[in-house]
Amino acid sequence: MQPINLSACLRQFSEHWSPRIIASLNDQEVKLAKFQGAFDWHAHDDEDELFLVVHGEFTMEFRDRSVVLREGELIVVPRGVEHRPVAEQECHVLLFEPAGIVNTGNAIESDKTNPATWLEGLAPPSAPS
Amino acid sequence: MQPINLSACLRQFSEHWSPRIIASLNDQEVKLAKFQGAFDWHAHDDEDELFLVVHGEFTMEFRDRSVVLREGELIVVPRGVEHRPVAEQECHVLLFEPAGIVNTGNAIESDKTNPATWLEGLAPPSAPS
Repeated sequence: MQPINLSACLRQFSEHWSPRIIASLNDQEVKLAKFQGAFDWHAHDDEDELFLVVHGEFTMEFRDRSVVLREGELIVVPRGVEHRPVAEQECHVLLFEPAGIVNTGNAIESDKTNPATWLEGLAPPSAPS
Repeated sequence: MQPINLSACLRQFSEHWSPRIIASLNDQEVKLAKFQGAFDWHAHDDEDELFLVVHGEFTMEFRDRSVVLREGELIVVPRGVEHRPVAEQECHVLLFEPAGIVNTGNAIESDKTNPATWLEGLAPPSAPS
């Protein structure tokens, strides 16, 4: 039960599209990710996903429209909805989603498929929740 | 699927210890709350709770120690752990926790017991998740 400082966590890694888990609770995970460029189109069949912009901005593209998300703004992408985050410049994002979700969803595995790993120095709760 | 701006949401209410739901996903809810003063000691038997400071700072008191949380810092309070948030000055906090949780936990109902309600203008998803 230590405070987790988002900026300090973000300084610990630089890879894009490579989410780091920073907390878990109620079978959900909190992750930080750095976006830059265009991600893959994908959907998650069974999981809703929340994106909260910590620094910068990005565009969440849907098949029929796009939504720009700026610092201090969040969006929930419901399960089953195809989406593609695109960031012209590096953008730092906090994600809330069920544990075990794969970042590229039900898309064919790609070079952007990255299993989320715990940020170094943080650890999952010792007892299963 | 509209962006939800935390600052704009926070301008919509002023009551302390009266959480507003701003999003829901995967049977969890995202809430905003304004803390000022000392809350009640309580625990949640079956729910872990996440607190992320959006503006200001507060102290999370536990029975054996205290943790100061500043802007951009989060903490997870595991189920069953007694805690009491205390804010000397008004502090704005984002909470992430299971839907239906009661803010005063398993404590005797008090004047601080407030069922979370959806922030005006926002609404739960039309279909059950």
